[in-house]
Amino acid sequence: MEFTLPPDIDDMRRRIRRFVDEKLIPLEADRANFDEHENIAPHVLAEMRKAAKAEGLWALQMPKRLGGQELPRIGMAACYEEMNRSIFGPVVFNSAAPDDGNMMILDRVLPEAMKPRWLQPIVNGDVQSAFAMTEPDGCGSDPNLTYTKAERVGNDRWRITGRKWFITGAVGAAFGIVMARTGNQATMFLLPLPAPGLTIERVMGSVDHTMPGGHSVVRLDRVRVPRSMVLGELHEGFRYAQVRLAPARLTHCMRWWGAAQRAHHIAARYAQGRTAFGKPLLEHEGVGFALARNEIDLKQTELMIDWAAWTLDQGQRGSSESSMTKYACAETLFQVVDRCVQVLGGSGIVDETPVSKIWREIRGFRVYDGPSEVHLYSLARKLGRNLPSN
Amino acid sequence: MEFTLPPDIDDMRRRIRRFVDEKLIPLEADRANFDEHENIAPHVLAEMRKAAKAEGLWALQMPKRLGGQELPRIGMAACYEEMNRSIFGPVVFNSAAPDDGNMMILDRVLPEAMKPRWLQPIVNGDVQSAFAMTEPDGCGSDPNLTYTKAERVGNDRWRITGRKWFITGAVGAAFGIVMARTGNQATMFLLPLPAPGLTIERVMGSVDHTMPGGHSVVRLDRVRVPRSMVLGELHEGFRYAQVRLAPARLTHCMRWWGAAQRAHHIAARYAQGRTAFGKPLLEHEGVGFALARNEIDLKQTELMIDWAAWTLDQGQRGSSESSMTKYACAETLFQVVDRCVQVLGGSGIVDETPVSKIWREIRGFRVYDGPSEVHLYSLARKLGRNLPSN
Amino acid sequence: MEFTLPPDIDDMRRRIRRFVDEKLIPLEADRANFDEHENIAPHVLAEMRKAAKAEGLWALQMPKRLGGQELPRIGMAACYEEMNRSIFGPVVFNSAAPDDGNMMILDRVLPEAMKPRWLQPIVNGDVQSAFAMTEPDGCGSDPNLTYTKAERVGNDRWRITGRKWFITGAVGAAFGIVMARTGNQATMFLLPLPAPGLTIERVMGSVDHTMPGGHSVVRLDRVRVPRSMVLGELHEGFRYAQVRLAPARLTHCMRWWGAAQRAHHIAARYAQGRTAFGKPLLEHEGVGFALARNEIDLKQTELMIDWAAWTLDQGQRGSSESSMTKYACAETLFQVVDRCVQVLGGSGIVDETPVSKIWREIRGFRVYDGPSEVHLYSLARKLGRNLPSN
Amino acid sequence: MEFTLPPDIDDMRRRIRRFVDEKLIPLEADRANFDEHENIAPHVLAEMRKAAKAEGLWALQMPKRLGGQELPRIGMAACYEEMNRSIFGPVVFNSAAPDDGNMMILDRVLPEAMKPRWLQPIVNGDVQSAFAMTEPDGCGSDPNLTYTKAERVGNDRWRITGRKWFITGAVGAAFGIVMARTGNQATMFLLPLPAPGLTIERVMGSVDHTMPGGHSVVRLDRVRVPRSMVLGELHEGFRYAQVRLAPARLTHCMRWWGAAQRAHHIAARYAQGRTAFGKPLLEHEGVGFALARNEIDLKQTELMIDWAAWTLDQGQRGSSESSMTKYACAETLFQVVDRCVQVLGGSGIVDETPVSKIWREIRGFRVYDGPSEVHLYSLARKLGRNLPSN
Repeated sequence: MEFTLPPDIDDMRRRIRRFVDEKLIPLEADRANFDEHENIAPHVLAEMRKAAKAEGLWALQMPKRLGGQELPRIGMAACYEEMNRSIFGPVVFNSAAPDDGNMMILDRVLPEAMKPRWLQPIVNGDVQSAFAMTEPDGCGSDPNLTYTKAERVGNDRWRITGRKWFITGAVGAAFGIVMARTGNQATMFLLPLPAPGLTIERVMGSVDHTMPGGHSVVRLDRVRVPRSMVLGELHEGFRYAQVRLAPARLTHCMRWWGAAQRAHHIAARYAQGRTAFGKPLLEHEGVGFALARNEIDLKQTELMIDWAAWTLDQGQRGSSESSMTKYACAETLFQVVDRCVQVLGGSGIVDETPVSKIWREIRGFRVYDGPSEVHLYSLARKLGRNLPSN
Repeated sequence: MEFTLPPDIDDMRRRIRRFVDEKLIPLEADRANFDEHENIAPHVLAEMRKAAKAEGLWALQMPKRLGGQELPRIGMAACYEEMNRSIFGPVVFNSAAPDDGNMMILDRVLPEAMKPRWLQPIVNGDVQSAFAMTEPDGCGSDPNLTYTKAERVGNDRWRITGRKWFITGAVGAAFGIVMARTGNQATMFLLPLPAPGLTIERVMGSVDHTMPGGHSVVRLDRVRVPRSMVLGELHEGFRYAQVRLAPARLTHCMRWWGAAQRAHHIAARYAQGRTAFGKPLLEHEGVGFALARNEIDLKQTELMIDWAAWTLDQGQRGSSESSMTKYACAETLFQVVDRCVQVLGGSGIVDETPVSKIWREIRGFRVYDGPSEVHLYSLARKLGRNLPSN
Repeated sequence: MEFTLPPDIDDMRRRIRRFVDEKLIPLEADRANFDEHENIAPHVLAEMRKAAKAEGLWALQMPKRLGGQELPRIGMAACYEEMNRSIFGPVVFNSAAPDDGNMMILDRVLPEAMKPRWLQPIVNGDVQSAFAMTEPDGCGSDPNLTYTKAERVGNDRWRITGRKWFITGAVGAAFGIVMARTGNQATMFLLPLPAPGLTIERVMGSVDHTMPGGHSVVRLDRVRVPRSMVLGELHEGFRYAQVRLAPARLTHCMRWWGAAQRAHHIAARYAQGRTAFGKPLLEHEGVGFALARNEIDLKQTELMIDWAAWTLDQGQRGSSESSMTKYACAETLFQVVDRCVQVLGGSGIVDETPVSKIWREIRGFRVYDGPSEVHLYSLARKLGRNLPSN
Repeated sequence: MEFTLPPDIDDMRRRIRRFVDEKLIPLEADRANFDEHENIAPHVLAEMRKAAKAEGLWALQMPKRLGGQELPRIGMAACYEEMNRSIFGPVVFNSAAPDDGNMMILDRVLPEAMKPRWLQPIVNGDVQSAFAMTEPDGCGSDPNLTYTKAERVGNDRWRITGRKWFITGAVGAAFGIVMARTGNQATMFLLPLPAPGLTIERVMGSVDHTMPGGHSVVRLDRVRVPRSMVLGELHEGFRYAQVRLAPARLTHCMRWWGAAQRAHHIAARYAQGRTAFGKPLLEHEGVGFALARNEIDLKQTELMIDWAAWTLDQGQRGSSESSMTKYACAETLFQVVDRCVQVLGGSGIVDETPVSKIWREIRGFRVYDGPSEVHLYSLARKLGRNLPSN
C-alpha cells in the first residue's frame, strides 16, 4: 500500500497546476477569451497550446515516440484532475474527449504505417476527430441497438447508411470513427470529413455547452468507405468499443473530479468571505457541513479513480473497477457541484463564477459512457458469480 | 376534510388544461414561436393573450373589478399547476413572476386612486414591472443586509443610491418596486423606468433562461423619487416584503409543480416507448421505480401546496406553512425533474424535449425566495416555541 | 378543499390525546408497567382498557352496533396518530395489528350469524386473533408463492398442511385466519387455536419487540377444518387479502406517524435543553435543520394519510392511494425517527427514552404489508396506463 | 501508488479469513455458543482464543515483545475487516473495543515498569478493561463538558467524584481508565475495579447488544486513587484522549466494514437463491441495484480506511483523515447494512441471519467516537484554513 505519486509524476502534476493557476484561470475573467461555445477562443487556444508544448506538458497520455509524455494512468489521473480545474484545461493540453479516447484506440488498433496519417495529427493538435457510435433510434447503453449498416460494395468498398447522434465535435472534425453493423457483428470505420453523403443535420441545444463542436445529429446516406479504412479488424467493432470504454470513462472521472474540486474551492472561499445572520457563511453549519461533505466526497472519489487507474496500469481490463468508479464519480461529483451552487446561493445560478457552468456541464456525466443505472445493471449481473459461501 | 375542488374552480382548471393542451404545447414544436430568451415570441404571445382573455382565463389571481377571475389561492394552485405544463403558460395567462407578486402587493398597499395608473396596466398585460430587493454586496436571504439607501432631499423628494441584482425583468419593465433603507428601517418605492441615474449594468448569464428580461444587475446613482411614490407607508418595506413573500413563494411552488408534472409525463411516455436490453424501459425497475417515486413525490407536494394555499385562504399569514411547502417543493420537485432527465438518458440533456429546459430552470427555485437552508433555519427557530410537554 | 376535522371527530381526537398524555405516557417511566415483550403488562392493560371503554374511546374503527365508535377512516387517522404517541396506545384502545385488520375483514365477510362467536369477542377485547398468510419458503410479497395447501377431505372437511411465518400474535391467539391454496386459487379459513396438528415451532428473535406475542413460525400438519369455517367464499382468499390490505396498511401508516411524532417531540425537547459547544443543540444548524426537516416530513406524510383515508371513505378501493401513502410513510417516517436518534446522540441508542425502541420497531414497517420496492413495482406497472398524450 | 498488501500481511489476512470461515462462523448456527449478551459464550471463547494464539493470530495490533503481531495499521485494517465478518471475531482475537484502544494508549503512555502489571494482562486476554470518559450531564462530543472532578487529598492521593455513562464493559472489567477534571485541565487515572465508592448504577438497555458487559452508568463518590495511578502526565487527559481517538475510531471503521461485508454477502446469496414474480430476486433491478451500490460503497469505504491507516503509519496524527473516514464509514456502512435488511425482506428483521443483529449494532457507530455531525463540524472549521487562492 502506498498513497503517494512517484516524484517525476508529482513534479508534472505540480507544473500543470502552476500552468493552470498562472495561465488558464486568469483567462476566464475576460469574455474575450471565450468562443461562442463558452470554451476557449481559437487564438488564445493556439497560444496556450504552444506554451504547454514548450513546457513539456503536452499530450500526457500519448507515447513519447508520438510526442506525448507517456504517463501511466495513475499519472494521468493526477494531471487530468489538475488541468480540469479550468474548463479550458483539456483542450489546451490536448486531453479533451473525444480526441483523447480516439488517440488511445487508434494507437492500439491502427497499423504503424497508418499512424502518421491518422493518429499523429491529432496528437499534434493539428486536427480534431469525432466518434460516432450512439444512435437516436437505438439506445446508447445497449450496443445491440445499432441500426447503422455497412454494406459491402464490390470487393474493396463499404457503403454506410444510418443516423447517429450525440456526435461530439462532428462540426470541425477532420475525420470520424464510425461504428456500423456488418452482418451480425459491428465494425469501426475511419471516415475523413466532410464526406459525400454525410450530413450534419443539426447541432442539438444542450444542457452542457463547452464540448468543442457541440453534440451533432449526423445522417449517413450511402457514404462510401474504402476497405482500407476499416479500423483494425472487421467485425471487431463492439470489442474495440469495450477496449476504448474503460479508459475513456476513467478520463471523464478525472476531468470531472478536477472541475468539482475547483467548484468546491470557489464555494468555500465564498462561504469564508460572505456574512449572513451575523457570521461568515462558513460558520453556519448548514453551509459548513455541506462543504465538509464535499471534502469527504472528493477524497473518496479521488481514491476510487486512483485505484481504478492503478488496476488498468497493472494490465487488467478493469471493466468492473472503471464501472464502479464511473458510477461513484458521476453521482457523487454531481452532488458536490450541486452543493457548491447551493452554497453560492443566487451567485451559484448565474455565470459570475465558473460554478454555474460546471454544474450544467457535469449533468451529462451521469448519462454518457453508460448512465448510472446501466453501470448498476452490469455490476448486479456480475455480482452473483463470485459470492463467498460464508 | 375534503380533497376535491369546488365545481366552478374545477371547471376553470379544465379549461386552462385544454387551452394549454390545444394551444400552447403545440407551439413548442416550432422554434419560430420562441424569442431569444427561449420564452414565447412577442407576436405569438399577443395572440395567445387575446385568446386567454376571450375565454375568461385572464389574471386569475386578480379581483374581478380589475379584470381578473378572483380565484382563492386553492384555485390558483389548481390553475397555475395546469398552466405551467407549458413553459409559455405563466406569461400567457399573466401569472408570471415578478408581475404576479407585484400586482398582489400593489393591490394590497396602493391607495385606490393610484391603482388605475400603477396597477391596472400590469393587470391588463400592457406593461411589465420589476422588483428590486436583492443586492450583490448583501445576502438575499438576510434583509438586514440592505445597503441601498434612500435619503430625504428637501421635503418631498428621496434620492436612492445603491446596487441591486437578480432584478428579473428589469430590461423592459415600465416601473420597478425598489427596496431601500430609510434610516434603520426600509421603505419600498415605486420607480418609473427608465429613470435618470438608474443603469442596467448587465444582464447576467444564468442557468435559467426563460425569465422575461433575464436577471439584471442595476446601479442606482442618486435616483430621485418624489414623496408620492413611497409605496404604502414609510418604513414598512420589510413588513411589505413579508406580506408579498408567503403568497409569492407559494405561486412559485404551483408553477414548478406544473412544470415537473409535464417533465414526468414526457419521461414516462418515453420509458413506455423505448426499448433497451429486450424490454420497454418502463419495465426496467431502475426506470419504473424512479417514475413511481415521481408520482409519489408529485402527490405529496401537491397536497402541501393545497394545504398551504388553503391556510392562506383562511386569512392566516401562513408563514410557516408556505415556508415548509416551499422547502418541500423546491427540493422534491428538483429531484423529480432530475429523475426525468436520467430516464431520458442522452435525450434528457439535449433540448429535444422541454425536460432539459425545465431541469435548468427549476434549479434556481432551490435558491430564490429563500434558499432551502434559510427555510430550515427559520423553521428551526420556531420549533422550540410550542413543543408539547410529552 | 378543507383541511379540518369535523368537530365531533376532533373532539374524540382531543380526548384520546388527553388520555394518552395523562394516563399512558406516565406509565412508561416505570419498568413494572411493562411485560417481557416490552409492551404493557397485563394487569395495567386491563385497567387502561376499562378506562378507555368508560370514556367511550374503545374500538374506534368498529361499528357502533358491535360496541365501537364507527369512525370514518379520516377519523381513524386522527385518532390512531394520537394514540400511538404511546407504544401502549394501540392495545389499550383495541386498535393493534393484526386484530385491527382481522376485525375489519371479519365484519366485511362473515355472515351476521357467525359474528357473535368470531368477531364480537375480539371487538370486546376478550380474545386476540392471528393472521397467517406469509410463508418462509415463499415470498411475502408475491401471493402466488403460497405453498400451504388445503385439501378437501370428504364432503365437509378440509385438511391444511404447510408452514407459515411472521405470524404475529400466534402465541396467545384464540383463533387465526389462515390462507391456503385450494387448487389454483386460495381460500381463507377460520381456525380456533390451539388446533391439533398446528405447532408453533418458535418465536423468532426480531428487531422489533412490542408486537403482542412476537413473530412466530407455525407448522400445520394436516390440520382439520370443517367446511363451515371457510371464511366468506371459497377461492376468494387472494381477493379478501386485497380487501384487507389497503385499509390495514393505512392503519400502519397512522400508527407509525404517531410514534414518529412522539420521537420528534422528545428529540426536539432534548435539543432545546442540551448544550454543546457553547449553545443549545437546537441552535446548532446541524441539529435544528434535522428537526425542521422532521416537521416538514411529518406534515407531508400526515397529508398523504388523510388523503388516502378520505379516498377510502369515498367508497373507492384506494389501492394506489394506500400504496403511495404506505411507501411515503415507511421510508419517510423511518428517516424522521432515525434523525431523532441522531439528535439524541448516545441517548438515542439506549433505552432511556422511547426513541430507541420506536427506531427498532419502525424498521419492519418498510418491509411488512409490502416492502417499499414492491409498492414501487406495482405503481410502476400502473403508470403506463393513463398517461396523458401531452 | 500501490493498492496491494505486503505478502506477509496478506498471508496473515488469509489465515484470519480461514479461521473465521472454518471456526467462528459455524459457531453462530448454535444458540448454545452465545452468552446472554448475544456474544460468544465464555467456554467457547476460551477455546477459540487458545486456537487463535496457537496459530499466531493473537493481538495483532500489539508489539511482539508483549506477545502481539505488531501489524502496522494498514495490516490491522485488512485483518480487522476479515475478523469482523463474524460478530465473535474481535473478542476472539483480542481486538475488541474498548480493550483495543486502552492497550494502545497504555503502551504509549505507561512507564515500562508499570506495563507488566497494567498492560500485559489485557494483552494476554486475562482481564478486561473499561474506558470512562462520557458523562450523562455533559455531552460526549464536547470534552469541555467534563463534570467529574479529581481533587487532591494530601500529597499523594486524589479523590474522584462524578458520574459517567456509556461505560462499555464496566461490568467485569479489572480496571478502568477514568477521565476527570483537575482544575482547568483533565487527567486520566488508572482505577482497579471494583473500587470503594464506585457504583455501577445500571446497565442501560440499548439498540446494540454485543458489547461485552453492555453500556453502564457509573457513579463515583469520592473514589480514592493514589498519585502513582495518574496515567502518564498530570493534566494531559484531553491530549491523551486525542491520541487514543484517531486510531480507536479507525479500528471501529475496520470492524464495521467487516460486518457490513458479511451482511452484504448474506443478502446477495439470498437474492441469488430466492424467487419472486418469476425470477431470482437478484435479477430484479430493485434488488440488484441495491446490492451493486453496496459493492461500490464497500470499495469506497475500504479505500478510505486504507488511506487513513496508511497516513497514521507514516507517523502523522491523521486527525482529519480519520475523521473523514469515520464519517464516511459510519454513514455509508449503515446504508449498506440497511439495504441488506431490505433485500432480505421479512428475513432481515428477524434473527434468522446475523444481518438483523449487525443492523442494530452498527447504528451506534454513527453516534459514538463523535457523531457524524461533530465530524462535519470539526472538518468545516479546518476547511477555511488552507484554501487555494484559485
